[in-house]
Amino acid sequence: MLDARMKLTLKPIGVIHSPYKTKEKTPIQGIFRPEGTGWVELYPEYEEGLKDIDSFSHIFIIYSLDRAGRVELVRPTLLDDQPHGIFACRYPSRPNGIGLTIVRLLERKANMLKIGGIDVLDNTPLLDIKPYVPRFDSFPQASEGWFAGKQERPKPPGRE
Amino acid sequence: MLDARMKLTLKPIGVIHSPYKTKEKTPIQGIFRPEGTGWVELYPEYEEGLKDIDSFSHIFIIYSLDRAGRVELVRPTLLDDQPHGIFACRYPSRPNGIGLTIVRLLERKANMLKIGGIDVLDNTPLLDIKPYVPRFDSFPQASEGWFAGKQERPKPPGRE
Repeated sequence: MLDARMKLTLKPIGVIHSPYKTKEKTPIQGIFRPEGTGWVELYPEYEEGLKDIDSFSHIFIIYSLDRAGRVELVRPTLLDDQPHGIFACRYPSRPNGIGLTIVRLLERKANMLKIGGIDVLDNTPLLDIKPYVPRFDSFPQASEGWFAGKQERPKPPGRE
Repeated sequence: MLDARMKLTLKPIGVIHSPYKTKEKTPIQGIFRPEGTGWVELYPEYEEGLKDIDSFSHIFIIYSLDRAGRVELVRPTLLDDQPHGIFACRYPSRPNGIGLTIVRLLERKANMLKIGGIDVLDNTPLLDIKPYVPRFDSFPQASEGWFAGKQERPKPPGRE
């Protein structure tokens, strides 16, 4: 069993192709650019694991935030200039650098998935795909926390 | 940047304390045991990163499926005896072994979070916490895919 002194080694299982080549152009959340599409490419040795994926309209993609900057545990974020804890926001520079987003699954072609509502940088390493199941994952009554009322805005300079 | 030949090293940031000591007793999904509570313990050096977490009713917890068995890319699952691709199901034995669950945040005491609707094994290594924001994460209209109509059942022998 892992503990505080142990480490876990992961290996990318594919790569995410996105129209967003820079952090500046990458949307803060996919819902702010629902029209943005991209492709998830699974390395061919994993293709078999996609069986039945096309029965889902939405999927989670889990990836490595491989170009994120220095981690600060409390910091201003993209949607708010007030400092928030890193575990109370979705800012990309975070311990372990794991990214999570929910996208629309538009099409499957062999080991490639066309996705909509993407908010990741081009060439992002893919770590996992899980089906989004509203019975398990949709909580419309959940609180918005400090995000309540925060609107999309240009990314403040120096933030990513 | 990572590619297929590179590796990513993660370090647990805490540990999840759960009433479920065995795979057999661990619920398939949290919604099947909403009354089950546990504690997420963040190692003290990360406590500062919880600032404002208590403004959220629900959080994502991302963890290591550290006791999962052998990965099969296509396999029968916990809710269905038909084989499905590992990326089209939530089965725990999967490439990279990253677990994801959405839980209710009930209480914060310093570096400890009391959570409800837990579906993880006791002593599971914690990798990340993110706030669940319904505007970004709730898609009640998403399809249930092959999960449609599947009801909770005892875990079939030999599955975890």
